[in-house]
Amino acid sequence: MADQKSKILVIGATGAIGKFIVKAGVREGHPTFALVRESTLSDPIKGKLIEDFRNSGVVLLYGDLNDHESLVKAAKQVDVVISTVGISQIADQVKLIAAIKEAGNIKRFLPSEFGSDLEYGLNDAVGPAKATFEEKIQIRRLIEAQGIPYTYVASYCFAGFHVSSLAQIQPGLPSPPRDKVFVWGDGTSKVIFCVEEDIGTYTIKAVDDPRTLNKTLCLRPPNNIYSMNELVALWEKKIGKTLEKTYVTEEEILKNIQEDSIPMNKFIWALVLLIYVKGYQANYKIDPSSGVEASQVYPDVKYTTVEEYLDQFVL
Amino acid sequence: MADQKSKILVIGATGAIGKFIVKAGVREGHPTFALVRESTLSDPIKGKLIEDFRNSGVVLLYGDLNDHESLVKAAKQVDVVISTVGISQIADQVKLIAAIKEAGNIKRFLPSEFGSDLEYGLNDAVGPAKATFEEKIQIRRLIEAQGIPYTYVASYCFAGFHVSSLAQIQPGLPSPPRDKVFVWGDGTSKVIFCVEEDIGTYTIKAVDDPRTLNKTLCLRPPNNIYSMNELVALWEKKIGKTLEKTYVTEEEILKNIQEDSIPMNKFIWALVLLIYVKGYQANYKIDPSSGVEASQVYPDVKYTTVEEYLDQFVL
Repeated sequence: MADQKSKILVIGATGAIGKFIVKAGVREGHPTFALVRESTLSDPIKGKLIEDFRNSGVVLLYGDLNDHESLVKAAKQVDVVISTVGISQIADQVKLIAAIKEAGNIKRFLPSEFGSDLEYGLNDAVGPAKATFEEKIQIRRLIEAQGIPYTYVASYCFAGFHVSSLAQIQPGLPSPPRDKVFVWGDGTSKVIFCVEEDIGTYTIKAVDDPRTLNKTLCLRPPNNIYSMNELVALWEKKIGKTLEKTYVTEEEILKNIQEDSIPMNKFIWALVLLIYVKGYQANYKIDPSSGVEASQVYPDVKYTTVEEYLDQFVL
Repeated sequence: MADQKSKILVIGATGAIGKFIVKAGVREGHPTFALVRESTLSDPIKGKLIEDFRNSGVVLLYGDLNDHESLVKAAKQVDVVISTVGISQIADQVKLIAAIKEAGNIKRFLPSEFGSDLEYGLNDAVGPAKATFEEKIQIRRLIEAQGIPYTYVASYCFAGFHVSSLAQIQPGLPSPPRDKVFVWGDGTSKVIFCVEEDIGTYTIKAVDDPRTLNKTLCLRPPNNIYSMNELVALWEKKIGKTLEKTYVTEEEILKNIQEDSIPMNKFIWALVLLIYVKGYQANYKIDPSSGVEASQVYPDVKYTTVEEYLDQFVL
């Protein structure tokens, strides 16, 4: 087994982080499988992505979280299942766990996390962030109760979302702002960033690793820990210009969590509060009985630094 | 506490079995709460039902499985939570468990079961029935892992669905057929029937009962155990007429499970196979370490017999 890489199945392969994990699986030489809906093939964007997967050697399996037989059949073909399903499908992973249990052959399961380190974050989480964390924690408890070997991945902030927008929390900003910026709280809390490709790499490194068995893998690249003030200052230095800053207080953010009428916005405001104001991410020591730090166990991974990442936006 | 009846919250109160549990809660003198969506109030049928609840003293709480705060707030007001959510929401009970865990005050949780005795039924279940059983079993494992006090209710076949149609498995048949009938398999397997009002009564009796704590309550009214042949013969005797019988083999039912194009039909065919052909319901002894039989622990309940139940259809 030592020189045979495990077969990996990704559920949620066309999603925000799933696609990077599929690509890392292929890149790292694992036989890589993706569960996709046949109907997704005709989606203009996701269909193209699936076609790219196929061309790179990914084995496509047709199925759905709601089709138990498809899940059991898929699980039986692989060694490792990685779920990257979205927020609305966290609870539905119960169905995936039932299938993994029935299949009986899965050596490692990674449920959909790839964000906060739940049990640490929970102390400061409010509103919809708290609700989602608690839901994900129930999935953890079920996995543990069923004796399914697991790794939880705490990847903190995706660079593509947080760094590329200078934490402006607007998805799809083509580049960081060059005129003015909102700063959450006083901007001094330390936040951890990781580029999506590196999240894929670290995740795939972990799947066959006994050091990450039944542990949380925390992605804390040491050069990627910045306060918001430091992140903004780094960007200002790169573009040679000072941004106009508007400081937004904890009270104002709490008010947004209460009053914003869009559920997804409420969720994002709750994350802003947790991550940028409360600043829990770099604030705790990883307990070696339950967690390992990725850059320490995989020192060979040359991760992209925030500094390098920002260079792509300097014209 | 001995003479103070627990406060009961029903999630799924307007559903097929939920409404009978709400009514039984009121009838048995429990402060009874129902979680409803505000939008349901304007539904022509369910809105009327909710109005009836309110008039009978039920406390309406507005909320939703997807609104964590509403669940926590509701749970904090009661002692017992009974979930009767439908098949499509079984996994979403993870969210309810998260709320119960956060509330921290719930003395008994009854997840949505009210049908097969899962772990016994699982041996013979196939297709979508097996998938649903496994999903419900995962919810059991999570409840147990979280140390939430529970009672599982195995109520076997609802009379309003199975007896009123003579097991023709067509919901809403106004009365049993008087000309011809399909018989599943050879019609000799024993099946257990229980009238919905009695399911409500037994369920409510169990919520404060230490004998049902962390056990499955099996509803096996001794006079309500019939083979399909016996059930049809009873009806024939009541109407003084012999029905034309078409026997449907196990193979034909299996074919329907494979080929029926409607997911809910597939599920029902799988139940027909499990219940009427395999006949597991009355085929096992209740293990006293994990289960109790309702008519034995509540001999005072004068349940409606199948024989009495059929009388309403004899004109």
